[in-house]
Amino acid sequence: MGKPPSKRPGGRGPWRPGQASGGRRPPRRGPPGELPGGVAVLYGWHPVVEALRNGSRQVRRFLATENSARRLEAELGGLDPAPQIVRPDEISRLLGPDAVHQGLFIEAEPLESPELDTLSDEALVLVLDQITDPHNVGAIVRTAAAFGVEAIVTTARHSPAATGVLAKSASGGLEHVPFLVVRNLADALEQLGERGFLRVGLDSEGDEELGGVAVRRPLALVLGAEGKGLRQRSRATCDVVARLDMPGAIKSLNVSNAAAVVLYAVTRRLAGA
Amino acid sequence: MGKPPSKRPGGRGPWRPGQASGGRRPPRRGPPGELPGGVAVLYGWHPVVEALRNGSRQVRRFLATENSARRLEAELGGLDPAPQIVRPDEISRLLGPDAVHQGLFIEAEPLESPELDTLSDEALVLVLDQITDPHNVGAIVRTAAAFGVEAIVTTARHSPAATGVLAKSASGGLEHVPFLVVRNLADALEQLGERGFLRVGLDSEGDEELGGVAVRRPLALVLGAEGKGLRQRSRATCDVVARLDMPGAIKSLNVSNAAAVVLYAVTRRLAGA
Repeated sequence: MGKPPSKRPGGRGPWRPGQASGGRRPPRRGPPGELPGGVAVLYGWHPVVEALRNGSRQVRRFLATENSARRLEAELGGLDPAPQIVRPDEISRLLGPDAVHQGLFIEAEPLESPELDTLSDEALVLVLDQITDPHNVGAIVRTAAAFGVEAIVTTARHSPAATGVLAKSASGGLEHVPFLVVRNLADALEQLGERGFLRVGLDSEGDEELGGVAVRRPLALVLGAEGKGLRQRSRATCDVVARLDMPGAIKSLNVSNAAAVVLYAVTRRLAGA
Repeated sequence: MGKPPSKRPGGRGPWRPGQASGGRRPPRRGPPGELPGGVAVLYGWHPVVEALRNGSRQVRRFLATENSARRLEAELGGLDPAPQIVRPDEISRLLGPDAVHQGLFIEAEPLESPELDTLSDEALVLVLDQITDPHNVGAIVRTAAAFGVEAIVTTARHSPAATGVLAKSASGGLEHVPFLVVRNLADALEQLGERGFLRVGLDSEGDEELGGVAVRRPLALVLGAEGKGLRQRSRATCDVVARLDMPGAIKSLNVSNAAAVVLYAVTRRLAGA
């Protein structure tokens, strides 16, 4: 029996390190745009447009350059809340010089996390096992939104915050695919199994080629970090561990590229193609 | 009739801006690790291991920390040339503080570019139309190496250099997939057509869903930049322009994720799966 997953501590972002104590804590590089205290920082065209379209996103602070505000108003047919008009360098000062903010900056409440037992019976979910790079996780969120993933299951620890660089790379996808934050990933996988989910892990040492795995909904696809792969207990809790055979000289993909290939392959099979 | 592609000017890296004059020049952010003068800078475990395994890669300068040199020697069974042993911060000083160099740094000659008329009759090539982000192009190179792509065709201008951040993201893939650098992409596509290549462009406004396109070798897959897509003449020179239909709320992928999906789909069909 799996323990129920922890709830997100109030007032903290879904991907903040949780309050679990003991054990080693990975070095967290603070990407520009992350603020302490559970605020989601969203900047750039797509993240801000999608956030303003999302009725559940509570905006605390909204800065825009004059040009960007005009363009945004034309796109959305109105701006509520109204932005505070600023010069571009005022946004750059908040984000650092490398952030491509396109004159748009929002601080918002993090979105609510769903719970494992409220996932639909037809769900497709992605489970991320200690994937820490915010660019990669952001690209995965974007691709997950494109392929209709219902939620991304991950731990509060060993994961980047759903803000800043991650939000930028997700290109608005954060508004469509919620994070479901659990304390222990293997426990969550057990609980998904009890809910009837087929749990397919992806690993270069997998037993079956992905193309040969019979998939069906509800389905959980479990991805590990590059180099390290799935942790032992995550792997042991999957129903199948699949590999992706590739014909070329390099035998591993960037993790967001791997996620894209797996989602494409699996959603086509689920749709009967 | 297409003009023949330009040859790489002597002593310059394959992805340096060429000497074409006139027109606007895009702002080139110099990522850490890029040096002027056509030197390929390679750092981190996979890029350096693959470069040392590549007999055609001429190493000019090779720095390693004591630990990394020992680990590398164990991996390769010897080190030729021998590295200059340095402290980690000496490499960080060359690359900037954000580069994850893992104690390994090489400056090498850029690899030779192949020519359009020496591509094999069974070739699969990727054609990149003004994709400028070095992280994305690096991830594309890595994925191209995994799927057995014979060459990446691109222009000297509007492309990042095959060094530094790009090489790091390519994770050794640069040693396996050469860049074929042309002056004009549409001319190169015409020449590929004369060579018998099927030219399939990818674009969100494509006429056919990718799954419905009958592919065969030799094959050229043409990808445009995010947001901008294929330029008009690139598009017009393709035999088919295909789109990727996706079921979710977000309708576009990160360009390296899109490349991965397309390469997976196409190589499986070419293999008869």
